[in-house]
Amino acid sequence: MADELELAQASALMEGEAQVVFTPSGRRGRFPVGTPLLQAARQLGVDIDSVCGGRGICGRCQVECMEGDFSKHRIVSSSDHLSPFSEPEERYRQRRRKQWVDGRRLSCHARLLGDVVIDVPPESQVHRQVVRKGADYTDIELDPVVRLYYVEVQEPDMHDPSGDLRRVYQALEYEWRLENLRCDLRLLQDLQIALREGDWKITVAIHGDEQLIAVWPGFKAAGTMFGIAVDVGSTTIAAHLCDLSSGKAVASGGVMNPQIRFGEDLMSRVSYVMMHPGGDRAMTSAVRIALNKLFAQITEEAGVRTTDVLELTFVANPVMHHLLLGINPIELGGAPFALATDAALGVWANELELELHPNARAYVLPCIAGHVGADTAGVLISEQPETFDEISLLVDVGTNAEIVLGNRQRLVACSSPTGPAFEGAQISAGQRAAPGAIERVRIDPQTREGRFRVIGCELWSDEPGFAEAVAEVGGVTGICGSGIIEVVAEMFLSGVINQDGVIDGSLAADCRWVIADGRTFSYLLHDGDVKVSITQNDVRQIQLAKAALYAGVRLLMERLGIDRVDRIRLAGAFGSHIDVKYAMVLGLIPDCDIAQVASAGNAAGTGARIALLDKKARPYIEELVRNIEKVETAVEPKFQEHFIDAMAFPHKTDPFPRLAEVVELPAPKTAQRDTPEGGVKRRRRRRG
Amino acid sequence: MADELELAQASALMEGEAQVVFTPSGRRGRFPVGTPLLQAARQLGVDIDSVCGGRGICGRCQVECMEGDFSKHRIVSSSDHLSPFSEPEERYRQRRRKQWVDGRRLSCHARLLGDVVIDVPPESQVHRQVVRKGADYTDIELDPVVRLYYVEVQEPDMHDPSGDLRRVYQALEYEWRLENLRCDLRLLQDLQIALREGDWKITVAIHGDEQLIAVWPGFKAAGTMFGIAVDVGSTTIAAHLCDLSSGKAVASGGVMNPQIRFGEDLMSRVSYVMMHPGGDRAMTSAVRIALNKLFAQITEEAGVRTTDVLELTFVANPVMHHLLLGINPIELGGAPFALATDAALGVWANELELELHPNARAYVLPCIAGHVGADTAGVLISEQPETFDEISLLVDVGTNAEIVLGNRQRLVACSSPTGPAFEGAQISAGQRAAPGAIERVRIDPQTREGRFRVIGCELWSDEPGFAEAVAEVGGVTGICGSGIIEVVAEMFLSGVINQDGVIDGSLAADCRWVIADGRTFSYLLHDGDVKVSITQNDVRQIQLAKAALYAGVRLLMERLGIDRVDRIRLAGAFGSHIDVKYAMVLGLIPDCDIAQVASAGNAAGTGARIALLDKKARPYIEELVRNIEKVETAVEPKFQEHFIDAMAFPHKTDPFPRLAEVVELPAPKTAQRDTPEGGVKRRRRRRG
Repeated sequence: MADELELAQASALMEGEAQVVFTPSGRRGRFPVGTPLLQAARQLGVDIDSVCGGRGICGRCQVECMEGDFSKHRIVSSSDHLSPFSEPEERYRQRRRKQWVDGRRLSCHARLLGDVVIDVPPESQVHRQVVRKGADYTDIELDPVVRLYYVEVQEPDMHDPSGDLRRVYQALEYEWRLENLRCDLRLLQDLQIALREGDWKITVAIHGDEQLIAVWPGFKAAGTMFGIAVDVGSTTIAAHLCDLSSGKAVASGGVMNPQIRFGEDLMSRVSYVMMHPGGDRAMTSAVRIALNKLFAQITEEAGVRTTDVLELTFVANPVMHHLLLGINPIELGGAPFALATDAALGVWANELELELHPNARAYVLPCIAGHVGADTAGVLISEQPETFDEISLLVDVGTNAEIVLGNRQRLVACSSPTGPAFEGAQISAGQRAAPGAIERVRIDPQTREGRFRVIGCELWSDEPGFAEAVAEVGGVTGICGSGIIEVVAEMFLSGVINQDGVIDGSLAADCRWVIADGRTFSYLLHDGDVKVSITQNDVRQIQLAKAALYAGVRLLMERLGIDRVDRIRLAGAFGSHIDVKYAMVLGLIPDCDIAQVASAGNAAGTGARIALLDKKARPYIEELVRNIEKVETAVEPKFQEHFIDAMAFPHKTDPFPRLAEVVELPAPKTAQRDTPEGGVKRRRRRRG
Repeated sequence: MADELELAQASALMEGEAQVVFTPSGRRGRFPVGTPLLQAARQLGVDIDSVCGGRGICGRCQVECMEGDFSKHRIVSSSDHLSPFSEPEERYRQRRRKQWVDGRRLSCHARLLGDVVIDVPPESQVHRQVVRKGADYTDIELDPVVRLYYVEVQEPDMHDPSGDLRRVYQALEYEWRLENLRCDLRLLQDLQIALREGDWKITVAIHGDEQLIAVWPGFKAAGTMFGIAVDVGSTTIAAHLCDLSSGKAVASGGVMNPQIRFGEDLMSRVSYVMMHPGGDRAMTSAVRIALNKLFAQITEEAGVRTTDVLELTFVANPVMHHLLLGINPIELGGAPFALATDAALGVWANELELELHPNARAYVLPCIAGHVGADTAGVLISEQPETFDEISLLVDVGTNAEIVLGNRQRLVACSSPTGPAFEGAQISAGQRAAPGAIERVRIDPQTREGRFRVIGCELWSDEPGFAEAVAEVGGVTGICGSGIIEVVAEMFLSGVINQDGVIDGSLAADCRWVIADGRTFSYLLHDGDVKVSITQNDVRQIQLAKAALYAGVRLLMERLGIDRVDRIRLAGAFGSHIDVKYAMVLGLIPDCDIAQVASAGNAAGTGARIALLDKKARPYIEELVRNIEKVETAVEPKFQEHFIDAMAFPHKTDPFPRLAEVVELPAPKTAQRDTPEGGVKRRRRRRG
């Protein structure tokens, strides 16, 4: 066998050829002795990065020659089978010790002398993987829409006059096979200076393989081109700064959305525009100023120049989307809720008055419908419900809940007007999630006494030292979204309220925590400087919100003709803080195996990051959202019906068998049909 | 025969069909009775305009039914063979009496009842002709890059939510077969408002069949969309405002180029940038401000809103081109004279800070080489030398002469550093062409006394009443470009100077007009408050300028391997004012049949106007200029040789047989080889 092999090798060498096998791809081929490894890789379609075009400058094409016995490959490899370490390699190694790994070679300068096995490490691949956490998630493939190319440009020649730009295009075509390129005036204004400063060597950034957007003299090293993924929420704006050559997030940050001063929630901002002509421009300006501050902050934190940021992606709900783009959102304030566009948009960052590289581009993910925004498109990219056989339910709760349901066959989406109760608004002791806010609650089923934890304090309220610890964060100040959900759920589980949400006044006699409050009763959770009581109206607000959410989900289930979901993902801040068990006890979401219910974290932001790092995600999501069936809850007569049925905890008629396996639900009182007061009758604040 | 015809007709009618013949195209076909004429025309490929898509709103599709005996067409026509005058036609006639011609029909509403002959008048054709004056010129075909389309857009539907833009695209595809459209953010910001103001009826302007650039509520009538063709010269900026629906120039105007304060000629402006970093930005800003003023002036004159201007075209020499675009022209100031780009450019007018429609586009014609600019591209569009078998010589004289030579086989081009002498600069009594400047000169061959005419005065200086008449324009102030050419030519013809340009001092004794002037002599043309003398140095300046021009022409002739040209066109202000006979007497241009030498007027500006009105001119000129062979005079060793030979009048060796047929040229003094002083030795001020 060995004889045979040696014979084959000898014969190959006699013919002046050598075989190379690349791992991990396994691609192999025979090439003339002296062929550079990079060239062999190119011909075999092996993915090796290179910015400098094989000049030994960029160091992106490093590979490793595998030693040892590779007889199963029918090839014996040795580093002697490569040309000796070359001068450019030595120069690179000297200059960039940090980027150098001993034992490696620059594949553009290492030449085949005999048979070899060459390993391409992940960081030398163009389409390397960016690792995502979580079992469900596939890794992101790094394939940004902007790439750097280093070229040496022909100098101008009076005997054959042609513009500098033409010679740049020729160099890019000759060295990189890039054709039909174009550039705009801003680049042209910089081009001649860069060419001469760089002594006719330049690095250009090309967007989408077709548009030159930036030029630098000489070679621009890896780790100097960045992108920012932005999630413009009604309350907060979050941004992730990513190195586009490694895919790493190098800094993240968030700021409050300054539009809050024009209105707390979406509808009040649209109302502001209706009442104040030109108010949209003020809000557009406010959000853009905030973005510039945020960008300055995160680039400074990472030691990155703002002018090295070349690409942006945005997710936002429809109203934020329109205001960011300078489109009056007034049409989103009333039926038929018409978007200006439901397509993705590519714009110049400077059209949005963003102070980055003057030619930075921004990609805005597509909105799906008037109330289902680009944020949901981001959630879809991140969660990929279209890749599962199981039915996924994705819920992103804000003042509207954006809901997507389905699997690889079919996806349906809607928005449901939950109102801001889940965020602690319109709750008597409600507040934003901040230190001092009650976020976790337990009620003793016997005594009905409550205990709780507040944000910023590790201890439960009945643990020793709680009073001192909570004083450090400024004491108990109110109750936030996740707290209100837990307290109402615990009130239900402990019998303080019945299935219809009515506080059981008969308890008031024996229990100091249930207190008469005019014609209704309240539940006293905390009796301190700041009293935290849950009023009958607070419970109603939660009922209204959860009924809206559930009714939206039910409508979608009906549309798909299903009566159960397999997986539930709760996106956004709400999803991260909520205890899914309590969400199900209240019937915010339908019955499901609790192990299959999870937070999706900031899935919208993750989707923006994926669209930033992998250009293929863009046409993919554009196609996907076009094929989603949109359901408009406002015109579905059954929505009201589902809504009324969903007022009860967890639901008037739907069974929750899987929930009952983990929680002991109070027996429903089937006789009681409607609550004596409040609730259902006054209703339909539209959106908000 | 008649029986046969009637039979054929009757049978057609029985089959429910009728025949229609369209004139002038002659296209014909059979259609079901009841077919609208416009639809029949579309199917036959007959060119009939329509903006409203057949709704009877735009009135662009008017046609005439021809009466009489059309038996040679084998068809008998009658207006009875069309459906009766319809309500929409009556409505249009009432509303737009001015646009209505009696006897016409709207082809979208007139339906075929029987056989007819239908004439499509020129103004109803999409690709109508715009008449150009001059025997040489083909008419311009009106086919602007921007077109208006009226559409009725589907209203948004909550049951099937989609963005407004998507429905606009759908309407444009459905009604106009326009696909793959795109629009930018600015249009999107206006779209929703226009749709609702227009009750879902809008007119959009589409650029290049692909980009929506403007939207208006409702129907936008003809005569409300304009373009401006601009010629940015070193000295003056000229602009023509054209109605893009008729092709008519509705106003024209010019302003001085305010960059003059940074330097009189091109080279001094480039020098200014070299000496004053940032000076390019100041000049860019100056020219853009001047353009805005000029645009405001001509639109006001025509009663047109600046925001109704949607398209611009620009021609300019390379330095003006770069400064207009905000590109530092410094590279054009020294070898190798590299253009930033030699391609045509399409930019947003607002990138050039031009205050027109916010989405107006500007098309900048391609430069050809470092000294042969987009102005020459304009001359080529206008003069079309590539369509002749005869060899054309095109000369555009400024401080550089841009020269093109060739025919349908081959075109060559160069630029020659004539300097500003032809414009009256660097001439002792020289001045710009303005009232009071001498522009025509005759010298009596016997007495050598000169007589002349000045700009602004009809009389010759020897006619009665001249003194009073010239006083009215402020007296004689100097001599302009055409005057200096004539006086030097007349000095040569009358023997005041010899073939080598030396003023004959021996005349001074007998002739009071030849005067000793240090070591040389002068010729006194006018002896008034302002003396106008032609010095030996003035003659030298003209010799240097004309030798440069001629040497450039000779170089191109050599490149083509020819020794004579068939036609000569002199472009620009210089060409319009010069007497071609004198230009040839001096040897500015080679020998040619004088009948074949003419001014091309403002050919560059005409080229810009053609590129504005007919979009096909754009790819055509882009292709043409790419195939022109560029000759760089600065690196051609033979240029110096030709230059020296061309110092003599009309030339040292080249014969001028055709000129000699119309003018009696003094016999050359063959013995004399070089002038005793001045002239050739000190030389080569580079460009300017």
